[in-house]
Amino acid sequence: TSLVLVVQGLGLLSVILVSVWMGNYLGGFAWSEDPDRQFNYHPVFMVIGMIFLYSDSILAYRVFRNVNKLYVKILHASLHVGALIFAAVGLKAVFDFHNAKSIPNLYSLHSWIGLSTVILFGLQWVCGFVAFLFPKLSYGLRTRYMSQHVFWGLTILAMAVGAALTGIMEKAWFMNFAKDSKFKYSALPSEGVVINCLGVSIIVMAIIVFYLVTR
Amino acid sequence: TSLVLVVQGLGLLSVILVSVWMGNYLGGFAWSEDPDRQFNYHPVFMVIGMIFLYSDSILAYRVFRNVNKLYVKILHASLHVGALIFAAVGLKAVFDFHNAKSIPNLYSLHSWIGLSTVILFGLQWVCGFVAFLFPKLSYGLRTRYMSQHVFWGLTILAMAVGAALTGIMEKAWFMNFAKDSKFKYSALPSEGVVINCLGVSIIVMAIIVFYLVTR
Ligand code: HEM
Ligand code: HEM
Ligand code: HEM
Ligand code: HEM
Ligand SMILES: O=C1O[C@H]([C@@H](O)CO)C(O)=C1O
Repeated sequence: TSLVLVVQGLGLLSVILVSVWMGNYLGGFAWSEDPDRQFNYHPVFMVIGMIFLYSDSILAYRVFRNVNKLYVKILHASLHVGALIFAAVGLKAVFDFHNAKSIPNLYSLHSWIGLSTVILFGLQWVCGFVAFLFPKLSYGLRTRYMSQHVFWGLTILAMAVGAALTGIMEKAWFMNFAKDSKFKYSALPSEGVVINCLGVSIIVMAIIVFYLVTR
Repeated sequence: TSLVLVVQGLGLLSVILVSVWMGNYLGGFAWSEDPDRQFNYHPVFMVIGMIFLYSDSILAYRVFRNVNKLYVKILHASLHVGALIFAAVGLKAVFDFHNAKSIPNLYSLHSWIGLSTVILFGLQWVCGFVAFLFPKLSYGLRTRYMSQHVFWGLTILAMAVGAALTGIMEKAWFMNFAKDSKFKYSALPSEGVVINCLGVSIIVMAIIVFYLVTR
């Protein structure tokens, strides 16, 4: 349906907005030669992996209703692998940044939510693989697990949205208080509008995914 | 079931943690005579209204399965009125604080999410009242509206959780950078543990509510 297209549009919009924020306002990208700009990969890769690819993978079953179920399963599982790879690189970027700057790891609410999300996502992947692809549970067990799989799939997506929103707030306030930055959040400059629209776009997208899956 | 009791426990825990944070670490409460401490009512009242009472109201139908449906409806609607009253006072506290300090209103992602949440909650209340209590829609329309009512009821709860988490991050970083505060978030002092546990407690509680309602 057309709602699936809206999800694609909002997913793309989110990736564009987070890239503009990091690429344009916060100085662009670098790897370990410049830790501050290495950080900038973190938000971009987390949004691509844990929001955009994650949602697309969930919607695969809605879009390819008439395609051989095995192919759709493989697509669903592969998109989730893609999501996990982006997430891993995004996490590497922020841990490298912290270590390079001697900032402690895992102190914030954002980092607690974020790490739990990725771990649960990994567990869900293993359970989904074992139940539905190989070695594949019996029909009875599979149907009983299915409702749990869908529940946790949506719950972990909601957690990923929570991780993204807390991360966005955190970075916005870091820049607001950073000595070398002119960003004043309360004056709502264009950078602030980009930040808020990024959050709104992620939320609206997730709501539509929930709506499509629970119908 | 016992999960309902866990929700009560986590709801109470969240209210206690946010009260300890505001009451103990951030100087306690006052009304307009001291705007900085008037702010402190905002998180406490929002958590009581939009998280604790909201969840309890949703669970009313699960707990009172054998009670006359009309009574449960009235309880459900009244708890939601209570939630709305706490939310209104909590919003008044933060708008007063902003106005007293000449801080612009509604610039942050948190405030955008928060205000949308409360407005949608109010609309849901009106729709629920009209559909299920007075004048009451026909049986056919009521059943068709029901699945939308449940979907939006849970979606708005998720948004309230998103509002609370972004608000928590925001306040945590304000205090981290405030000149007259010794709070260093990255050293994870006891105040930081209270903050993170508040967030975790709200998230776990909401997940259990979703679980109970979707089963
Ligand atoms: C689903 C998405 C996300 C996940 C799972 C996630 C996860 C994490 C984790 C585990 C850390 C801790 C790293 C460490 O302690 O060394 C972290 C740090 C951080 N993230 Fe994210 N993140 C996500 C999205 C974002 C976004 C979108 C932003 C900003 C726009 C962001 C901003 C930050 C910042 C500023 C830090 C450093 C401060 C801290 O440790 O909290 N994150 N993230
Ligand atoms: C190898 C890994 C996986 C396999 C083989 C797998 C398999 C499946 C299958 C067979 C369905 C049922 C589709 C239907 O008939 O409606 C499904 C649905 C779903 N899966 Fe997975 N899954 C895997 C990993 C994951 C992961 C990692 C997540 C999220 C973290 C996830 C989230 C979901 C969700 C939310 C649905 C519901 C989609 C809908 O009903 O439209 N899955 N999955
Ligand atoms: C469902 C819960 C919540 C809702 C609906 C909500 C709503 C709002 C709204 C609409 C504003 C804007 C006020 C203005 O611009 O004058 C605001 C401001 C604020 N809130 Fe919340 N809030 C919630 C929970 C919390 C919590 C739990 C905290 C902190 C622990 C918090 C911290 C703040 C802070 C620091 C501000 C001022 C900065 C800003 O405007 O973003 N909020 N809140
Ligand atoms: C006057 C206002 C309201 C009335 C009369 C009303 C009525 C109802 C009724 C009849 C049900 C069906 C329970 C069942 O048979 O399973 C229900 C469920 C529900 N309502 Fe409301 N409602 C009102 C306001 C609200 C509001 C403001 C919200 C949230 C913002 C909300 C959220 C929910 C949710 C999530 C459920 C599902 C609970 C479950 O299935 O256990 N309601 N409501
Ligand atoms: O990720 C972080 O960024 C800040 C600071 O380095 C940015 O100014 C900080 O304390 C973090 O944990």
